[in-house]
Amino acid sequence: MPTSAALERRLLAEIMKIPVIDVHSHVPAKEPFARSLRDLVGYHYFTSLAHSAGMDKAVLADDAPDEEMIPVLVEALAAADNTVQYGWLMELARVLFDFPHERLTPDNWQELAESVSRKAKVRGREREILRASSVEKVFLTNAFDENLRAIDREIFVPSLRADTLVFSFTDKTVRKSLAKVTGVGVEDTKSLQRALEKLFERFKSNGAASVAISLPPQLKVFPVVESDLDTALGKADQGKPLSAAETANLQSGLLFAFAQMCGRFELPFQMMCGVIRGAYRHGVYQGRDLLQAGDTLRSLMPLLNAFPEVTFCLSVLSDSQAQELASYGWLVRNVVVSGHWWYDTMPAYIERDLAARLQCAPKTKLLGYYSDMYKLEFGLPKLNMYRRVLARVLAWDLVGTGRGTEQDAVTVARLLLRGNPQRIFKV
Amino acid sequence: MPTSAALERRLLAEIMKIPVIDVHSHVPAKEPFARSLRDLVGYHYFTSLAHSAGMDKAVLADDAPDEEMIPVLVEALAAADNTVQYGWLMELARVLFDFPHERLTPDNWQELAESVSRKAKVRGREREILRASSVEKVFLTNAFDENLRAIDREIFVPSLRADTLVFSFTDKTVRKSLAKVTGVGVEDTKSLQRALEKLFERFKSNGAASVAISLPPQLKVFPVVESDLDTALGKADQGKPLSAAETANLQSGLLFAFAQMCGRFELPFQMMCGVIRGAYRHGVYQGRDLLQAGDTLRSLMPLLNAFPEVTFCLSVLSDSQAQELASYGWLVRNVVVSGHWWYDTMPAYIERDLAARLQCAPKTKLLGYYSDMYKLEFGLPKLNMYRRVLARVLAWDLVGTGRGTEQDAVTVARLLLRGNPQRIFKV
Amino acid sequence: MPTSAALERRLLAEIMKIPVIDVHSHVPAKEPFARSLRDLVGYHYFTSLAHSAGMDKAVLADDAPDEEMIPVLVEALAAADNTVQYGWLMELARVLFDFPHERLTPDNWQELAESVSRKAKVRGREREILRASSVEKVFLTNAFDENLRAIDREIFVPSLRADTLVFSFTDKTVRKSLAKVTGVGVEDTKSLQRALEKLFERFKSNGAASVAISLPPQLKVFPVVESDLDTALGKADQGKPLSAAETANLQSGLLFAFAQMCGRFELPFQMMCGVIRGAYRHGVYQGRDLLQAGDTLRSLMPLLNAFPEVTFCLSVLSDSQAQELASYGWLVRNVVVSGHWWYDTMPAYIERDLAARLQCAPKTKLLGYYSDMYKLEFGLPKLNMYRRVLARVLAWDLVGTGRGTEQDAVTVARLLLRGNPQRIFKV
Repeated sequence: MPTSAALERRLLAEIMKIPVIDVHSHVPAKEPFARSLRDLVGYHYFTSLAHSAGMDKAVLADDAPDEEMIPVLVEALAAADNTVQYGWLMELARVLFDFPHERLTPDNWQELAESVSRKAKVRGREREILRASSVEKVFLTNAFDENLRAIDREIFVPSLRADTLVFSFTDKTVRKSLAKVTGVGVEDTKSLQRALEKLFERFKSNGAASVAISLPPQLKVFPVVESDLDTALGKADQGKPLSAAETANLQSGLLFAFAQMCGRFELPFQMMCGVIRGAYRHGVYQGRDLLQAGDTLRSLMPLLNAFPEVTFCLSVLSDSQAQELASYGWLVRNVVVSGHWWYDTMPAYIERDLAARLQCAPKTKLLGYYSDMYKLEFGLPKLNMYRRVLARVLAWDLVGTGRGTEQDAVTVARLLLRGNPQRIFKV
Repeated sequence: MPTSAALERRLLAEIMKIPVIDVHSHVPAKEPFARSLRDLVGYHYFTSLAHSAGMDKAVLADDAPDEEMIPVLVEALAAADNTVQYGWLMELARVLFDFPHERLTPDNWQELAESVSRKAKVRGREREILRASSVEKVFLTNAFDENLRAIDREIFVPSLRADTLVFSFTDKTVRKSLAKVTGVGVEDTKSLQRALEKLFERFKSNGAASVAISLPPQLKVFPVVESDLDTALGKADQGKPLSAAETANLQSGLLFAFAQMCGRFELPFQMMCGVIRGAYRHGVYQGRDLLQAGDTLRSLMPLLNAFPEVTFCLSVLSDSQAQELASYGWLVRNVVVSGHWWYDTMPAYIERDLAARLQCAPKTKLLGYYSDMYKLEFGLPKLNMYRRVLARVLAWDLVGTGRGTEQDAVTVARLLLRGNPQRIFKV
Repeated sequence: MPTSAALERRLLAEIMKIPVIDVHSHVPAKEPFARSLRDLVGYHYFTSLAHSAGMDKAVLADDAPDEEMIPVLVEALAAADNTVQYGWLMELARVLFDFPHERLTPDNWQELAESVSRKAKVRGREREILRASSVEKVFLTNAFDENLRAIDREIFVPSLRADTLVFSFTDKTVRKSLAKVTGVGVEDTKSLQRALEKLFERFKSNGAASVAISLPPQLKVFPVVESDLDTALGKADQGKPLSAAETANLQSGLLFAFAQMCGRFELPFQMMCGVIRGAYRHGVYQGRDLLQAGDTLRSLMPLLNAFPEVTFCLSVLSDSQAQELASYGWLVRNVVVSGHWWYDTMPAYIERDLAARLQCAPKTKLLGYYSDMYKLEFGLPKLNMYRRVLARVLAWDLVGTGRGTEQDAVTVARLLLRGNPQRIFKV
């Protein structure tokens, strides 16, 4: 039976105090926060909504001055002022930049722009933002050939992004760059393993805590015989075209090789499942990818089965897989259920998915939320959105149905936002 | 945090005043309202439920007199008096026909039958019904060879139904009829374009505001090379059988040709996605079609990409696609998210889908609800069902979470029910 | 508009009084209740959660003594004390075994173990449990070669499990056992029919009320020509390997043959759709099966169409099919919507699915809940979970929206828990 809204408020207050470990973001280590308003409204969540609502995307050209671009974007965004994304923008503007207005308009955007520029000059701004957001550490997503030395490891945690190596391995510049950073030219399975070993050693010694990759819908993965992987790697090395079967061998072989290294180096493998890159041809930058309804994790099973000692932190993009993911968390020992990703990050989905996860899967196998943000400022409103849903679900479902006490609910919240990330990624 | 139920009631009162533009129905222009009770209970929503609950479908024979058919149907329907569909019938009986009983029974159906017959004779009955339903205009779905002259365009808006031409083009009578109404015999791509041009001209000059089609699940659509379409059209013209590949070319080619004409004539293309016609062989008339779980819009992407200037108003039949559709509305500029169709029109689905749409997509890209009705009387209960859910979602989600004020909520409701249809279809 | 929580409480009180007919379980007729605590915590719902949360599965070895196994299992289970499954265990411990603690721990498990052993010796314990659970009759799932004589038919109802015959027919021991119990060696379609006839006669004369089978996702079923089935059965009989096409013919042919016998013997066919057996290789016993998101009932349609006189009671394992299943119940006369199965039996799913079913399908075509239990004790907490959701949905949706009165709600509850099972299975 429902308990009171007062409980929900008390839980939210406790939840706000938990210092979050944010296990996935795209924050650039060197420019982690916004230097200008453009850095904020240029986030694909806003440009894609404005474009979808009718804005000409030519407006977004890199050389268009703020004075031209921003008012047009802001005006188009008004059509989306009902959305949660718009709400993020207004919440961060209010909390992080003292912006006093309810809506961003062509008349008041300069006020916000000035505040953003001013705050950008504050020393330790990144820490100020994290403090205001109740975030302790933020995972980055680093290119395999990125310099990791400069990363401020007190607040940032590197992760190796595997997408480019797995899906663009036939690209000459990719292989060249891999050879350069590892000192190993890959021409067969053995040299691949040596190269990955070097790569993982470098990441590990620089504090990397995970490997991350995004996968297309219904990607078939399967164990590849060494000689078949040799053939595919050899052709790639020689610049010869690969058949469809060889490409499949190459991608699965690389994925298995990464998983094997994850095992050896004790790094969890974060997989974001189900994104169709470039599906919408006319979209803005980073606004062309879509999900696919009816996708399934089944095709990943051979990989999950092959590496029982590797922890796979899985996210899905399609809401039609939500129960499948929760069930994997329930049953499959090396699967951790992670966050609420992109098109699936709306409260309407989070609420039901979170309730179901907490009903069926061990509380130790859930990563509550990651920001997926490109600038630190977005952690605050995205996490707050999640925190509100979390407080509601814990109050009305966990405590309200008698499965746990108020104290249990706080314990669960701590695990989801901090304890599980700490234990799983050893940070 | 939740606000009060009082807000929900105030919003509903405001929503009831908005004159709706109903963008999709099957109302026959010449017989738009019920002449007899049979016209109402003969709606497939009721015959299929009664049959599913055990009624012999022979009862529905055209020559069975009302006195035989209706009591049997009414008795069988009692097994479904828990349903929303049954609720529609009772609500319209009460409001439009002053029927005083809570249930329709073999003992009281004649009372309703008399009221229906009596009201049918009232002059201007169609306007009376629309007034009671708070509906201003109703879109029709017109066969390509239908006479459009007689349509009362003050209240009705013609739409060209494309199903027959796209999916039954090899049917000789279809091609003959097309030749007759356009004066063009289609034998290749060029003559197809001329015929469609004539067809669209006629519809446009008669006030048509859209083209509408229903599509089977996972229909693959793709751009067809002109010579391949020539071959398929030629074979169809000569009455020769088409291979599976040629049939696919024909259907995709026709679909692309329709979309092209939509672009030239500035007509939105309404697509109802995912119906398997005739799936249940033993069903009653119009009660044989089903949805398919796990269907996806992905296969439509080539069409949506090919005509960025055409507005596609998409509905889906499978609940497992709800988030996919909402995400298309969010990202894809030429996609409008439309209504809650057929098996997906239950409040349990509408509530969550509507909340999600309002959370993620621009408010200008949502068509709230269309009736899909066969007689005008059904607009009232179906729309009222939607209006109640809309009031609830706006109160508890939009206003309750602080994303908008009460006035914003009314603005959103106006857009969904009236403003967006007006702007998108230019009516 | 919402009515009061008081209504929900009153409905729950009424619902608790309804003597349930539980139409699907795996209770062994000879050992229907727990002899020891191990019989309870050894249920796959707990061993799989404990293993998933990190427990070494070697602990579960048959020869590991309780003193070693149980504390380790109990300790691992603490990580899942947030779950509904854990809640089942604590509820049955409290109600059926007077266990006074909120959690099961390595320190208090022996207290519960003693209580279980003590209660096991009470004469008529199975009836005591059923009384406490408000359950009148429980369906069993019997192997085709099981002895049915010993079954206590006052409380148990046999059902013929078809899985082994349909999916392991090429297994020599299976065919031998079939020959032994029927006196018919199957070598072609005709002898298959004779054997099934004997089998069904035996089950029918022993009070069997249904046939039950679980099916893998997207199983293609189709009518098989007799000569093709002859070929497949002949090869199986001769121990020759079957091609993929022949295997498909064999399985579809067997499924159709079972359905045909269901028609002749007037037995409903219970189908649990969508389980991938052995998907997770490293799972514990009975903890290796998974669902598949995006599965569909469409491929079953040929079977449903071919036997309009056979009642198919369908359950699905994937939440993405929930609306599809409800729609089949709405439209397809010989389909009954049954229960909430396994990964789909969490309240988060049940609540929405139940609301939707009650909104769209005749109340006479819904089987509310079956326990799927392995020991009688689990009926109590699983059914109570369902009853609470049922009371809530009836209160807030059926009564709250005005589709029915409080008395109607009780009537619906009676149908779902008792009246429909009685009528559909003639028990």
